[in-house]
Amino acid sequence: MENQGPKPIRCKAAVCRAAGEPLAIEEVVVDTPKAHEVRIRIICTSLCHSDVTFWRMKDLPDNIPRIFGHEAFGVVESVGEQVDEFAAGDAVVPTFLGQCSECVDCRSARSNMCSKYRFAVRPGMPRDGTTRFTDGQGRPLHHFFGVSSFAEYTVVDVNQVVKLNPAVPPALACLLSCGASTGVGAAWKQAKVEPGSSVAIFGLGAVGLAVAEGARICGASKIIGVDINPDKCELGKKFGVTHFINPKELGEEKPVHQAIAEMTDGGADYCFECIGLAALMNDAFRSSRDGWGKTIILGVEMHGAPLCISPHEILHGKSVIGSMFGGVKPKQDIPILADKYMNKELELDKFITHEVGLKDINQAFDLLLQGKSLRCTIWMDK
Amino acid sequence: MENQGPKPIRCKAAVCRAAGEPLAIEEVVVDTPKAHEVRIRIICTSLCHSDVTFWRMKDLPDNIPRIFGHEAFGVVESVGEQVDEFAAGDAVVPTFLGQCSECVDCRSARSNMCSKYRFAVRPGMPRDGTTRFTDGQGRPLHHFFGVSSFAEYTVVDVNQVVKLNPAVPPALACLLSCGASTGVGAAWKQAKVEPGSSVAIFGLGAVGLAVAEGARICGASKIIGVDINPDKCELGKKFGVTHFINPKELGEEKPVHQAIAEMTDGGADYCFECIGLAALMNDAFRSSRDGWGKTIILGVEMHGAPLCISPHEILHGKSVIGSMFGGVKPKQDIPILADKYMNKELELDKFITHEVGLKDINQAFDLLLQGKSLRCTIWMDK
Repeated sequence: MENQGPKPIRCKAAVCRAAGEPLAIEEVVVDTPKAHEVRIRIICTSLCHSDVTFWRMKDLPDNIPRIFGHEAFGVVESVGEQVDEFAAGDAVVPTFLGQCSECVDCRSARSNMCSKYRFAVRPGMPRDGTTRFTDGQGRPLHHFFGVSSFAEYTVVDVNQVVKLNPAVPPALACLLSCGASTGVGAAWKQAKVEPGSSVAIFGLGAVGLAVAEGARICGASKIIGVDINPDKCELGKKFGVTHFINPKELGEEKPVHQAIAEMTDGGADYCFECIGLAALMNDAFRSSRDGWGKTIILGVEMHGAPLCISPHEILHGKSVIGSMFGGVKPKQDIPILADKYMNKELELDKFITHEVGLKDINQAFDLLLQGKSLRCTIWMDK
Repeated sequence: MENQGPKPIRCKAAVCRAAGEPLAIEEVVVDTPKAHEVRIRIICTSLCHSDVTFWRMKDLPDNIPRIFGHEAFGVVESVGEQVDEFAAGDAVVPTFLGQCSECVDCRSARSNMCSKYRFAVRPGMPRDGTTRFTDGQGRPLHHFFGVSSFAEYTVVDVNQVVKLNPAVPPALACLLSCGASTGVGAAWKQAKVEPGSSVAIFGLGAVGLAVAEGARICGASKIIGVDINPDKCELGKKFGVTHFINPKELGEEKPVHQAIAEMTDGGADYCFECIGLAALMNDAFRSSRDGWGKTIILGVEMHGAPLCISPHEILHGKSVIGSMFGGVKPKQDIPILADKYMNKELELDKFITHEVGLKDINQAFDLLLQGKSLRCTIWMDK
């Protein structure tokens, strides 16, 4: 009798064949899920800055050809052995950060950094390092963050899959997979912004605006957005930004931290760096108040520069904390964020500015690189 | 009828006439306390590293001649107008950090940085900037940290005076005025060390050993001391240090953070920098674990170097926090520490290694500079 289990699937994917070059839409073969893995039919995906950062990198040639994408929504198509948590038909989001739910970090409320399956940028699957993708010639294609959602189907480790309320619209569920959760989580989980507090956000991209959304939900009374793009002033208002600073308009005499000190009677309670520039991290630190000012680093530093601050200023009771995914524990917190959306507390629609079909995925790159989009939904069936 | 209020007092003090030079025992005049001030008869004082740091500084000539000292115990001799909190005869400790108990910082549990009377290194009194000391020729002598306890009598602002249980022996009460409170407070108040956690302490001077004492009281299960002085290995054990690392003995192949990672299964929960060297602050940061590792900066950086850390490493859920006085709110927390001493929880005796009379105060400097003493009690009546 023939094996009735899952079989390899032939489908379309956007393949990166050279760093920084447009992706190629190719027919690929997606292998069956192994033990502790699920195969997901991707409904939609979107482009996050981290995809762009790694797509540009010329110094990881071993990871190319590769399928990018890590912010997505899909439906479980089939499951491998020893998978009890999921079944075909489940609405799910994949996540770049895993949660084994067993290690000391997963069991602690203080950490979202699973220490059994540590986060790392690998070319293959997290458990065995091999790939589940091959191209038309049978040659392997590498994974990205263990997700690789720029494909009609992908295989993901169960630790990196979260079941989601299917009532959340696919394009919005997709945002909970990375960007929106990171920003909202940073305000809600990592900083624990209190009602009435002051917040300064350095960089109003999707993550920075999600921090504003999170701070608004937490009841912050002053949300200061800092961005050199003047268009972000109006845009920010939609996300709860109450004050806007364009550092270019301040002139050289007045540094940003001084402007923020004047607006907040000495410095903001919480400062978030959402770009990934060491100099901006220092600006954020200097903008935080003495006594309890907290600087939260979300951006991945782009140029390899160290984060440098004054060792005397920190003695005034200041702190700096970093987090991945905004401190969100995927399996525990993404469903909470989905509930917040369903309860109309968390507004997700406003993050989506564009949509395209998979075949036009390179347009999504252009829009993000030109600063025109926050999130562009990439639909697999368009 | 003659004014029955307090009169200027002629007494002995150790005066700094030139940076880095031995102090001179002189007869000085201590003025009457003004409004919101008390005059204290100092029973004993001790020498803290901050005294030495400022005593060495050649770039503050306007602050010399000056009376150093800020760790002390005494008895209120007289009070100025509008002083309700204290009366003659009260046992008190002066503190370099003030607490007005009214400002937003003093009212918050999160801060010990009074924002009404901000901490600053001034040559005079905090409210009016003038001095209460004159020398034999009637020329003004400057204050230090608003305390100037290297004198038989001194005048201190009420915000910087804490009433203490007179059952605490003077030489031990003196320690609560600065060093012991800073270290114990850093573990107890700032880091909030939990039972069973791992702690690494960089620098086992009095403050570092007080951190160990605090961590021991909090129930830390692993307390790793790091010091280049091999004598600190045995000494540390008295304060609860369970493991000792001498970086010089590790050799170049194994950095300190790697040794600590091996001892703690990935890094310490809490790392304390107690020396004031930017490179050591970075070592401490690297020695803290992913997920929730916290680095607490207590040392005042000696060479003006910036505190530099990896912006990628901090994203793994690490944090760096600084504090003055270990996060201790003087009027609230010093009495709690005194209670801990009375309950035999906090052991203070072991910090005192030497004692001298005021006339031999320069011996206390020599002992501290040679690394021979932890604390040398300087008695006024010997």
